[in-house]
Amino acid sequence: MKLINLLKETEFSKDMAHRQVLYDSRNLTLVAFNFEAGQELPVHCLSADSELALLVLEGDGEFQGENAVPVQAGNLMILPVCVPHGLKAHSRVRVLAFISPSVTEY
Amino acid sequence: MKLINLLKETEFSKDMAHRQVLYDSRNLTLVAFNFEAGQELPVHCLSADSELALLVLEGDGEFQGENAVPVQAGNLMILPVCVPHGLKAHSRVRVLAFISPSVTEY
Repeated sequence: MKLINLLKETEFSKDMAHRQVLYDSRNLTLVAFNFEAGQELPVHCLSADSELALLVLEGDGEFQGENAVPVQAGNLMILPVCVPHGLKAHSRVRVLAFISPSVTEY
Repeated sequence: MKLINLLKETEFSKDMAHRQVLYDSRNLTLVAFNFEAGQELPVHCLSADSELALLVLEGDGEFQGENAVPVQAGNLMILPVCVPHGLKAHSRVRVLAFISPSVTEY
């Protein structure tokens, strides 16, 4: 079993949203995205037949894609990775991304 | 896109740990497990070649399996679903389980 403490083992950057791959197997890629207030991950998408579950662990911001949706801690968004998605943080925000099956170029 | 508010859309039960399937596709099954203090999910395992990521969203307790491990909010455990696992809640606990690929009997 792999045990990860997200609060201790993931970092923030003053320069840009901080991306950290926590786990990667054939089945599953887990990526932590940590944002300081005002930072964003621009809208993007991947040409893969995988699904993405994005969980907001802390803070609040705006999910961006075809529509803008306010999101906060406890919100879970599930979508194909080929659908445009991004996030703008209003406060300090922690997001955990689960991509299944694994997408190596994430 | 499917948007789920875990704090509003998942429930607790006085009788036992509350299990709620939030999403199920070929790639991915998401299940919320909510525990009142003292409730537990007995150690179990599934005969499938899938991986399980368990994220503690709230509270603290003990992950149970080959070894007992204290866990708290922000802890993420990743293991094959065929490895014995369970949880005993010390406080009110919310856990989100990601199973990939999907396991229908979960």
